[in-house]
Amino acid sequence: MDYNQESIRIHQELGGKIQIQGKIPLQTTEDLSLAYTPGVAGPCLAIAADPALGRELTIKKNSVAVVTDGSAVLGLGNIGPLAALPVMEGKALLFKELANIDAYPICLGTQDPAEIIRTVRNIAPGFGGINLEDIAAPHCFFIERELQDLGIPVFHDDQHGTAIVLLAALINACTLTSRRVSRLRIAINGAGAAGLAIASLLKSYAEESGDPGQGEIVLCDTRGAIHSARADLNAEKKAALSFTNPNDRQGSIQEIMEAMDVFIGVSQANLLSAADVRRMATDPLIFALANPVPEILPHIAEQGGVAIMATGRSDFPNQVNNALVFPGIFRGALDANKHQITTAMKLAAATALAGAVGQPSAGRILPSVLDRSVAQIVARAVARA
Amino acid sequence: MDYNQESIRIHQELGGKIQIQGKIPLQTTEDLSLAYTPGVAGPCLAIAADPALGRELTIKKNSVAVVTDGSAVLGLGNIGPLAALPVMEGKALLFKELANIDAYPICLGTQDPAEIIRTVRNIAPGFGGINLEDIAAPHCFFIERELQDLGIPVFHDDQHGTAIVLLAALINACTLTSRRVSRLRIAINGAGAAGLAIASLLKSYAEESGDPGQGEIVLCDTRGAIHSARADLNAEKKAALSFTNPNDRQGSIQEIMEAMDVFIGVSQANLLSAADVRRMATDPLIFALANPVPEILPHIAEQGGVAIMATGRSDFPNQVNNALVFPGIFRGALDANKHQITTAMKLAAATALAGAVGQPSAGRILPSVLDRSVAQIVARAVARA
Repeated sequence: MDYNQESIRIHQELGGKIQIQGKIPLQTTEDLSLAYTPGVAGPCLAIAADPALGRELTIKKNSVAVVTDGSAVLGLGNIGPLAALPVMEGKALLFKELANIDAYPICLGTQDPAEIIRTVRNIAPGFGGINLEDIAAPHCFFIERELQDLGIPVFHDDQHGTAIVLLAALINACTLTSRRVSRLRIAINGAGAAGLAIASLLKSYAEESGDPGQGEIVLCDTRGAIHSARADLNAEKKAALSFTNPNDRQGSIQEIMEAMDVFIGVSQANLLSAADVRRMATDPLIFALANPVPEILPHIAEQGGVAIMATGRSDFPNQVNNALVFPGIFRGALDANKHQITTAMKLAAATALAGAVGQPSAGRILPSVLDRSVAQIVARAVARA
Repeated sequence: MDYNQESIRIHQELGGKIQIQGKIPLQTTEDLSLAYTPGVAGPCLAIAADPALGRELTIKKNSVAVVTDGSAVLGLGNIGPLAALPVMEGKALLFKELANIDAYPICLGTQDPAEIIRTVRNIAPGFGGINLEDIAAPHCFFIERELQDLGIPVFHDDQHGTAIVLLAALINACTLTSRRVSRLRIAINGAGAAGLAIASLLKSYAEESGDPGQGEIVLCDTRGAIHSARADLNAEKKAALSFTNPNDRQGSIQEIMEAMDVFIGVSQANLLSAADVRRMATDPLIFALANPVPEILPHIAEQGGVAIMATGRSDFPNQVNNALVFPGIFRGALDANKHQITTAMKLAAATALAGAVGQPSAGRILPSVLDRSVAQIVARAVARA
């Protein structure tokens, strides 16, 4: 099947993928008097008197705005807010199906970070959470950081969703290859939203494990390793130097990954050869997440002797898919009335997601995206964190 | 029944009145590949190549943002955006039930007009229309005017919805009392959003009838008639002087309405006595729209000899309710891909709404809000206009 063509056909036939549904009938004058005037004055006045009731009496407590500026949509780049809408609808569909959250797409006609922050602040009162989506780095970092005081969770899924799923996969891969995550030597290729968030979460996990500073993480971008002598680093890459590349190594990703345990790619298609994998440590782990074509295809990685491999694709084993995390993260945060998604919550989500697999194997280090129990398991862990 | 208390109970039980519903299943990997990645790249790329497809392939063509700043909610005043949410949800419920439109509440954390305009511009790409709601005068005028170039209909319901329903009611009341709308002498009490919009639409209707300048409309506010010697008028009230109060009369509403055919109140409870009605012209028409307590109760107006009377309440005959118009106005505008709601469309909606009654009588100059055919009748007229 040509998924793209069939998807266009379905979108046209349905006119988009989500709709509004009323929760109450509207057949009688009494229905109208309770749902609308005059009775609706009751909840309005109750909330005006006690704003905390806003969560109890409205859709706010179960609603998330999925906000994008269309600047980094899937692997398609800066296609703009309207062209991004089918992805945001898909996200809303997943929120509903997997976590019973009512998410609504907000596609912004601006790509100016200050303007995005302002707009999100302005629309926030009616929402219980904000899922930032497909906003390009480095703007995404600034935008998310500035919005942390909003009083409701603000979560950039392309950063943290990916990082959490990756960490969960790595936890199970380490169990299977008798290693400790905190002691791994890891090369990450791609220092945008996902790459930086992965590095940061791996550092936090090591700290949390009481075993910090024992492993090695080296971040690479299109110019190779990120090291202290480089003059072209943005603020986020510079900040990452405090916990990555402890030996300040220089070189290409292929040079950096030599003798390392793990390659994590959030970068570009067909970057690696079997020989690159062969030069890694024994039992190498490969997470090749470029979409739709990974940094290395599974059968080539196998020729190089990969122990466990994951991609972003649904047609290979071990799909690293944000949908394993964002529904449960928000479900837990909404249920527990959290005001932020903290690092502790992200680590709890990763651990819970790893545990949701049951008995992991090389071909199954992550649960299926379609497994309805995953969001609940993640949600409970997040709510407790 | 205590509607307010029962409404609070229902809102709490349901957690608000609307939810998101998916239009497609999400059970198999194939479902996921079509609704989300990788297939969703198809519609995304199609829209990026041809933005006109944005309407065809997404929820945009059937979606309306119901935007409020909570500054003038029902008759409750400036209770803020969160306390306004139950009303916005009710509005969204009516949109869906009466016109199958997917409306989503956007409650703004700002009451600054420039900031509201900016925010609406920023969130517009994903919506097919903007329903401004419960925004106080005079800001509402400026905000709506500035947004007319947005490329999608922007409609402040408290102004035009009320004006259109009022005009429809007046058309039928005139038929029943053998008058012409364009020749009526009309006193309007209340010169906020609704009062000014009513005056303006009545003027346009007279022009459209080829019979302008034959009637008399006098607008009053809390200081009485709006006349040229007053130094306290805002820009909108001043502008209204060009088509109201042709004889530049001064005086209180009670003085102004003497010998007039019509009283229209969008003001305050219990303003008028039976004696006030008795001093009007023969067969006086009273539209007492203050909510929940009208400017005069029907049984008192009857003592004064009222011919036909309407209120904003569902428990009296002839309810002037915006829900008779906004669903059909937007249905017609979305179906015909209109970029604005023009005066011609408003007049067409009023005429169609008057016609939707069938055989009018003094107790039935407007159809029922629950009549499912009304929105379609209005929509067809709007789409043709």
